[in-house]
Amino acid sequence: MTQLGITTGDPAGIGPEISVRAAFDPLIRGQCGLILFGDEAILRAQASVLNLPFDFEPVSRQALRGTGRLPARGIVHVPARSQEITPGTGSQASGEAAARNIEECTAACLSGRLDAIVTAPLNKKFLKAAGYPFPGHTEFLGALAGAQETRMLFVGGRQRILLATIHVALRRVPDVLTIESLARTLEYAASALRIFRWGARKTVAVLGLNPHAGEEGLFGDEESRIIAPAIERARASGIRAEGPFPADTFFAHRGQDGGLGIVVAMYHDQGLIPAKMGGIGGAANVTLGLPYVRSSVDHGTAFDRAWKRGKLSPDPSGLVMATRVAVDLAARAKGRRLDWAWPSSASST
Amino acid sequence: MTQLGITTGDPAGIGPEISVRAAFDPLIRGQCGLILFGDEAILRAQASVLNLPFDFEPVSRQALRGTGRLPARGIVHVPARSQEITPGTGSQASGEAAARNIEECTAACLSGRLDAIVTAPLNKKFLKAAGYPFPGHTEFLGALAGAQETRMLFVGGRQRILLATIHVALRRVPDVLTIESLARTLEYAASALRIFRWGARKTVAVLGLNPHAGEEGLFGDEESRIIAPAIERARASGIRAEGPFPADTFFAHRGQDGGLGIVVAMYHDQGLIPAKMGGIGGAANVTLGLPYVRSSVDHGTAFDRAWKRGKLSPDPSGLVMATRVAVDLAARAKGRRLDWAWPSSASST
Repeated sequence: MTQLGITTGDPAGIGPEISVRAAFDPLIRGQCGLILFGDEAILRAQASVLNLPFDFEPVSRQALRGTGRLPARGIVHVPARSQEITPGTGSQASGEAAARNIEECTAACLSGRLDAIVTAPLNKKFLKAAGYPFPGHTEFLGALAGAQETRMLFVGGRQRILLATIHVALRRVPDVLTIESLARTLEYAASALRIFRWGARKTVAVLGLNPHAGEEGLFGDEESRIIAPAIERARASGIRAEGPFPADTFFAHRGQDGGLGIVVAMYHDQGLIPAKMGGIGGAANVTLGLPYVRSSVDHGTAFDRAWKRGKLSPDPSGLVMATRVAVDLAARAKGRRLDWAWPSSASST
Repeated sequence: MTQLGITTGDPAGIGPEISVRAAFDPLIRGQCGLILFGDEAILRAQASVLNLPFDFEPVSRQALRGTGRLPARGIVHVPARSQEITPGTGSQASGEAAARNIEECTAACLSGRLDAIVTAPLNKKFLKAAGYPFPGHTEFLGALAGAQETRMLFVGGRQRILLATIHVALRRVPDVLTIESLARTLEYAASALRIFRWGARKTVAVLGLNPHAGEEGLFGDEESRIIAPAIERARASGIRAEGPFPADTFFAHRGQDGGLGIVVAMYHDQGLIPAKMGGIGGAANVTLGLPYVRSSVDHGTAFDRAWKRGKLSPDPSGLVMATRVAVDLAARAKGRRLDWAWPSSASST
């Protein structure tokens, strides 16, 4: 059975609540072994507020390093400076707790004890305040795993959308997008299709950058100058890449086609608007390039909803979706470590 | 009753077929007076292939100029060089026919005889070959109406999405977007809310340009440098503008909210990906800035499907949607001419 860890995120946000609720979700319960990483008192308090039994079996660091059986529902206590943590208000202490949850959880993944990691939301600002100056969650995980390069893939419903560029200003996208980087992204797409057994022969559909994919050079030339050559290069190495397709009509027509392998979007909003149109719980953010499976919610800490009841009560469906995707991907990868699976590793040998 | 004209588009494309089919659609039949503009022999042939009765009453140019009753279902015969027109293959002759359909139909709108125009698809290349070198349909209509400026609004389901920039390369978007042009777009949004009685006090939600709306300047500064000042300017003139909002989460959460007035997207694909996610027939393209109501299908001539039967048979639902939207908007505008409705006219006085 797949063994996965949930990081529980920034304890001042909605992370602890949605983590506990996800663990009890009927779509997840019994589908995997599940270990929460976080401060036990905080998680216990959440369970109590939610009227859920706190039946998570304590897992010691020693047990985590050993080879014995892990519980179906466990907790690794990662002590936080709880008296400095205020629900709803991020702080250095809450950022530090989020970081330490990740360090402990990824260590267990890197040692091979866990197959997959699901990350609850944290906040970059408080992560930085705690001395972890990463531009995002993914870069932090990449550094811990020693990964040179990662890619962001959104998986949800019948869609798999891979981003060619991520957190760059729109103005810079046309320059950041090079034949080399895009061809590399297409290799990641092909690796993912193979590793996760989605169909190694399926199409990698590449979107255009400009309106109507440039309409034959009328509005921009990146399609002919960058995208088409990258597609050619990928094809030369056997990847079934197609495009560039106009993005607006693509999602209207073919985007929902389950027969497609992966859609490659040129920039953040081009991929994330359609990926998220299904609402919370519609898509999970999967990181390619790590030696283990990682998925994440596609929303933030929602400090304004933390520990709230009633109408403001946080929606756990994003974390439930991310957990289901992680369980599915770990099963598809058959528990194998992914160290050698990604193009970056292959080319650095 | 609203009187509208359908241009029937490029006769080598799917325009004639979807126009005839739309006229018989139960969602439209009886909802408005409807006049087709096109070559009678071509439209008659389409009706025959479709096993539909050709019961369109001929409307003479004289009748169109007069004040008498117009038929519930009419046709203005705009002769085309039919022997030079091949179904499925655009040409100078088919482009010329498309242009002449538009000229005749808009003349009847400009004279006040028709309340609204619905345009079936044409192809820019063949329009240009016929001596009409417009970058698009909308610019052609603008020139015929003497409109200085227009805006593109997508209306469908519960969404109304207005574009701040349209057919420009993505690379140029950050420079084309100025405080002045965006503030102007917000005025168009406010005018549309008022004219079409969608709720003059409703919110005009403005999206960001960059990922996460720039995340406090981390990825681009257009949000603080251009978008926020334009919103401030609009607010100073009483417009309920809000934003800038991150585009990806906006469409995931608030984008489907019928209580919203209008969403303003910064560039083509940011607005059109969500507008078209409903598929063909999900949204109609409405032009703001003309003296009459105009809506259009959100797809092209589909030459590969022209005059085809079976699986390739063209889907008329885009034109049906555009017609329903035009009928609705004309009723909302209560048959008033819109000459003085738009900010461009107001400021040029």
